[in-house]
Amino acid sequence: MNVTLRGRTKHFRTVSFDAKNNSVRLIEQRLLPHEFKIIGTKNFKETARAITDMVVRGAGAIGATAAYGLAQGALAFHGQDLKKFSAHIATVYQTLADARPTAVDPVNAMNDVRREMARGKTVAEQQSLALAAAEEFANEDVRHCEEIGKHGSKLIRNGMKILTHCNAGWLAFVDTGSATAPIYAAQKQGKKFHVVCDETRPRSQGATLTAWELAEQNIPHQIIADNAAGHLMQRGEIDLVIVGGDRVLGRTSEVANKIGTYTKAVLAARHKIPFYVAIPCSTIDWKLKNGFDIPIENRDESEVLGAWGVTQTGQREYIRVANPTSGACNPGFDVTPAELITGIITPAGIFKPKELWKHRYELGFI
Amino acid sequence: MNVTLRGRTKHFRTVSFDAKNNSVRLIEQRLLPHEFKIIGTKNFKETARAITDMVVRGAGAIGATAAYGLAQGALAFHGQDLKKFSAHIATVYQTLADARPTAVDPVNAMNDVRREMARGKTVAEQQSLALAAAEEFANEDVRHCEEIGKHGSKLIRNGMKILTHCNAGWLAFVDTGSATAPIYAAQKQGKKFHVVCDETRPRSQGATLTAWELAEQNIPHQIIADNAAGHLMQRGEIDLVIVGGDRVLGRTSEVANKIGTYTKAVLAARHKIPFYVAIPCSTIDWKLKNGFDIPIENRDESEVLGAWGVTQTGQREYIRVANPTSGACNPGFDVTPAELITGIITPAGIFKPKELWKHRYELGFI
Repeated sequence: MNVTLRGRTKHFRTVSFDAKNNSVRLIEQRLLPHEFKIIGTKNFKETARAITDMVVRGAGAIGATAAYGLAQGALAFHGQDLKKFSAHIATVYQTLADARPTAVDPVNAMNDVRREMARGKTVAEQQSLALAAAEEFANEDVRHCEEIGKHGSKLIRNGMKILTHCNAGWLAFVDTGSATAPIYAAQKQGKKFHVVCDETRPRSQGATLTAWELAEQNIPHQIIADNAAGHLMQRGEIDLVIVGGDRVLGRTSEVANKIGTYTKAVLAARHKIPFYVAIPCSTIDWKLKNGFDIPIENRDESEVLGAWGVTQTGQREYIRVANPTSGACNPGFDVTPAELITGIITPAGIFKPKELWKHRYELGFI
Repeated sequence: MNVTLRGRTKHFRTVSFDAKNNSVRLIEQRLLPHEFKIIGTKNFKETARAITDMVVRGAGAIGATAAYGLAQGALAFHGQDLKKFSAHIATVYQTLADARPTAVDPVNAMNDVRREMARGKTVAEQQSLALAAAEEFANEDVRHCEEIGKHGSKLIRNGMKILTHCNAGWLAFVDTGSATAPIYAAQKQGKKFHVVCDETRPRSQGATLTAWELAEQNIPHQIIADNAAGHLMQRGEIDLVIVGGDRVLGRTSEVANKIGTYTKAVLAARHKIPFYVAIPCSTIDWKLKNGFDIPIENRDESEVLGAWGVTQTGQREYIRVANPTSGACNPGFDVTPAELITGIITPAGIFKPKELWKHRYELGFI
């Protein structure tokens, strides 16, 4: 999307590849919204660490990062021994897959790349196929998000108040975003509406990333504490909820997404407010049969015990908010059952949760 | 309760009165958990400001603060003209009542004080009756919290995981607390259990005040992001919810409490987890007939857009977390309907929500 820096507007992707330096280029999302900076990783291990450390986060963005990371690892291999190359690729793959165990996009993306690589007969051929496949994954992510926007924008009517949770915006993908795609498309169609961004503690991606995105695109919005969504729904101040997904089970339509998503879904169901999940095909896990089997990352307690921000003198600082002698429990994701979901907005259309499996071939099931 | 400062354990009340200096003495709660400090207000206006600025917060504590503030205002009057005194008292009363419009405790407490004052025939008599009534209000608050503990502790069984929201601990009262009273009583009875403290954004009273209280009393506990409660309930990690209340309607049992309470009640109902509200009698509003008529304070957006805490160098700082070009909506309280509440723990016993009105005379209805 476009970003305005010192008065100049320029188009950026969240993730791209610098072939000359064999480097994955990423928007350093931990600095946003206070600073806009692009970083380059030196090797696949740095790329994996960028995923773990949340330099880059979001389903599609980490998918593309893993795809590029696999290509980066492949391109760093010297020699012509296919067996050694294959063992090396297995290491690269595992390192990148382990970087964010709850998500399915990195694995899906890397499987795409590996499938393409298999067509090559030499190391050099496989290396070049890896990069082409990673580029294709990124481009497909962009196309998918645009399709999500096309379908999802039909849900948005003039005057609506739309709740979002976390960031499933263009920063979470290569471009356009999933949950934000209908919003950006509706804006282009001239519709007027208001977005309410859940802060999304502990990492505050709603207050930082989604709010930054919406401000950059001049979309009217307000941030709320996560605690306020129920109250606003009770008072008729929310008409529609759109969230993203970190992993959606193709068989059951259970949705693993940022912690707090389940809570919003429970609240929306109580108030009969439509609750939609917007995802590209790469977020769908066709194998798992039970949402309780999705591994839930337990993240570092420091995220809950404090916050990152900017002091009045402009210093970026972590402050300890919580009582210094207390600890925290910090599950990063939760699982929302299909019964609480009105529909799933995909590149192939909007489906009722139970219909994902029926439409699996349109949705890229292999 | 007891506080350990530099190895020494001493008993404190949250609110007390220094008659010699005509000053209301308050624990400066905004400095907790990082610093423990007692401040004294110079006059009733400073006392009202201490309520508005949240130096002191919590139903019983602001009730006692308003009662003492009214006595402080009365004692500051010079002269013997009862008419002028009466006009002065009306100003003091209104100033203190306006300090926190959502709460009912200050008004109830000051009405107690005024009723007692009316028995005096001179300014001097009324002044002395005002102080005695304020002291009695504070002492009654302590007794009520102890009764809440006695009744509520019966709900706590060994091995339970108890969720709390915000701070309805001893810091929110004169001593012992409402939501924490059953916890402190159960601890004295030798029961073993674990408390989960909602962080309670935007002001994080759960992470700061409740966690500090529990740590001081050596009660096992963990802080969670407000977003995590639904997930923990879904996974069977919460057995009981106890919260406080800022205003409970005696006729409908609707509960106005810190923003996010309603959300936890909706989640608890979905998971069939008992949801209790612990309150002293002074929190009950016998007049209002509809929870939607409870005024909901819209607080400053800076609370949502940032956080207070301590930097690594030990400085107390406000940091801006959110996107600098975005605004926030910050309702401070919400209203939970009776249907979501399992029971209300009062000094007179535990009642089903609909039974409050039936028991109104035991509960201090006048």
